[in-house]
Amino acid sequence: MNVNVRGRTQHFRTVTFDAAENSVRLIEQRLLPHEFKIVTAKNFRETARAITEMVVRGAGAIGATAAYGLAQGALAFRGNDLKKFSAHVETVCQVLNNARPTAVDPVNAMNKVLAAMRAGQTVAEQRSLALAAAEEFAREDVRHCEAIGRHGAKLIRNGMRILTHCNAGWLAFVDIGSATAPLYAAQAQGKKFHVFCDETRPRSQGATLTAWELAQQKISHQIVADNAAGHLMQRGGIDLVIVGSDRTLGRTGEVANKIGTYTNAVLAARHKIPFYVAIPLSTIDWNLKRGFDIPIEERSESEVLGAWGVTGKQLDDGRWTMGKRGYVRVANPTSGARNPGFDVTPTELITGIITPAGIFKPQELWKRRRALGFGG
Amino acid sequence: MNVNVRGRTQHFRTVTFDAAENSVRLIEQRLLPHEFKIVTAKNFRETARAITEMVVRGAGAIGATAAYGLAQGALAFRGNDLKKFSAHVETVCQVLNNARPTAVDPVNAMNKVLAAMRAGQTVAEQRSLALAAAEEFAREDVRHCEAIGRHGAKLIRNGMRILTHCNAGWLAFVDIGSATAPLYAAQAQGKKFHVFCDETRPRSQGATLTAWELAQQKISHQIVADNAAGHLMQRGGIDLVIVGSDRTLGRTGEVANKIGTYTNAVLAARHKIPFYVAIPLSTIDWNLKRGFDIPIEERSESEVLGAWGVTGKQLDDGRWTMGKRGYVRVANPTSGARNPGFDVTPTELITGIITPAGIFKPQELWKRRRALGFGG
Repeated sequence: MNVNVRGRTQHFRTVTFDAAENSVRLIEQRLLPHEFKIVTAKNFRETARAITEMVVRGAGAIGATAAYGLAQGALAFRGNDLKKFSAHVETVCQVLNNARPTAVDPVNAMNKVLAAMRAGQTVAEQRSLALAAAEEFAREDVRHCEAIGRHGAKLIRNGMRILTHCNAGWLAFVDIGSATAPLYAAQAQGKKFHVFCDETRPRSQGATLTAWELAQQKISHQIVADNAAGHLMQRGGIDLVIVGSDRTLGRTGEVANKIGTYTNAVLAARHKIPFYVAIPLSTIDWNLKRGFDIPIEERSESEVLGAWGVTGKQLDDGRWTMGKRGYVRVANPTSGARNPGFDVTPTELITGIITPAGIFKPQELWKRRRALGFGG
Repeated sequence: MNVNVRGRTQHFRTVTFDAAENSVRLIEQRLLPHEFKIVTAKNFRETARAITEMVVRGAGAIGATAAYGLAQGALAFRGNDLKKFSAHVETVCQVLNNARPTAVDPVNAMNKVLAAMRAGQTVAEQRSLALAAAEEFAREDVRHCEAIGRHGAKLIRNGMRILTHCNAGWLAFVDIGSATAPLYAAQAQGKKFHVFCDETRPRSQGATLTAWELAQQKISHQIVADNAAGHLMQRGGIDLVIVGSDRTLGRTGEVANKIGTYTNAVLAARHKIPFYVAIPLSTIDWNLKRGFDIPIEERSESEVLGAWGVTGKQLDDGRWTMGKRGYVRVANPTSGARNPGFDVTPTELITGIITPAGIFKPQELWKRRRALGFGG
């Protein structure tokens, strides 16, 4: 999507591969929204480190990064000994798997690349198949997000005010994003609308990443404290809610997503405001039978007890002077915190699920499982 | 209430008057929760400045401060000329009125003091009546909070987990507080319970002031992001909600309170969790006929776009090393914000209103208006 670099609008993807230099290029997400920078991982170990240190985050984005990292490792192999090559590829996979051991996307992405490589008879063939498969993985991520945008844009009418939560934007994918895809597609169709970005405490991804994306894309938007959503809905200020999903149960239609999603769904239901969840196919869990069984990660207390930002001050033109980046403790220093990272929204609160294959009622996912990639 | 000062537990009130030195003593609330300090306002102009600069905030606390400030101004008058004295008192009232021109509590408090003074025939009599009336105003504030605690404590059973929002604690009154009063009273009765303090973005009064109060009072508590309340309720983690009120409509029972209160009420209703509002009599508005007509203040964008805190780091014993105090910009620097300060909770979501005269259904307030000070 677009990024404004020193006054010029340029197009970027979150993750790209430079075949000439055998490098993975990533947007350095830890510096956003205060600084935009592309970093280059020159070998598969640097690529793994970028995943570990969260230079790149988001399901689609870390999947593609791992796929490229595997191809990068394969391409770096010198020689024709297939046995040595296989041992090398195994090392590459181990290093990338260990980059974020609990994440499922790198594993799935690398399995696709490994499956494609098996068709090759020589080291040279397997190397080029690895690169082709990694590129196809990234292209599919983009195609799926485009399809989500195409379907979701139909929900957006001129003049609408749309609430989003957290960041399921293009920074979390190779490009375009899931929850943001309908916004970008509607904008391309010339529709005018306004977006409220929930701040999304404690990590504030709405105020930082989603707001940054929308600002680059010149979409009208404002940040609101998570506390304000109820009031805005009550006073008729919101027409549509679109959020992303970390895990969607294919058997029930329940949605696990960033903490606070459930609250927004309850509020939307009370005010009869349509509540949609945009999901890439990779987040559908076809096994689990009850949303209650989704493990809810308890994250670090420090996220709740303080905030990350930069010192400085706001200039007359709205820009922020960059001071020192850092963490401030906001809360009482002798108090602790609870910090559940996700919550589960039940089926009856979800108007529809926007998938690459169309918009479905949450209860319909299981019936539509073939179209939604079940088993494949 | 209790404050731990260098390892010793001492008792403090938010506002006190030192008659020997004709001074108003205030807890410097702008330094909390990171530093505890008492400041002394040596004359009525310094007292007015403390109100303006928000050394002291909260309905009951600024009312008592203004009442003491008026007595302080009267006591400082030298001479017996009643006419000159009256002119002086008028100046004192003007200065204190202008300290926070939109706040209603200082005006009401000073009117009580002025009414009491009228019974005096001489300057000396009026001066001592002023001091007596100011002291009575502060005592009544404490008595009312004690009564709220007595009634509200009956709602609290052993083992309960109670959610609070914002700070309607003793720091907002002369002592004890409104929403916190049932907690302190239940603790005094030996009951064991756990409190979840909503962070209460954007100004974080729950994470700063309420958590500080509960920590000083050694009440078991944790801070949660405002986003977490829905999840905790869904998983059975909350048994009772108690919040304060900035304005309660005596004719309908609707409650205006800090932004996010309405969201908690909607969530509590969905989960059949009792939702109570604790109110001092001074916040009842007997005139307004519809909650929709309560003006909702739109506050500064900067509150939503960043956070106030201190740099430093957490030590092994849980304490926080004090670094530099300041504001950090969290949000995307080129985005704006909406920042409604309050919301309105409708009657049907409120289980009961805890008043100094007892607990009532919100619809009963009008019927009980004589007991609740209507017209007086």
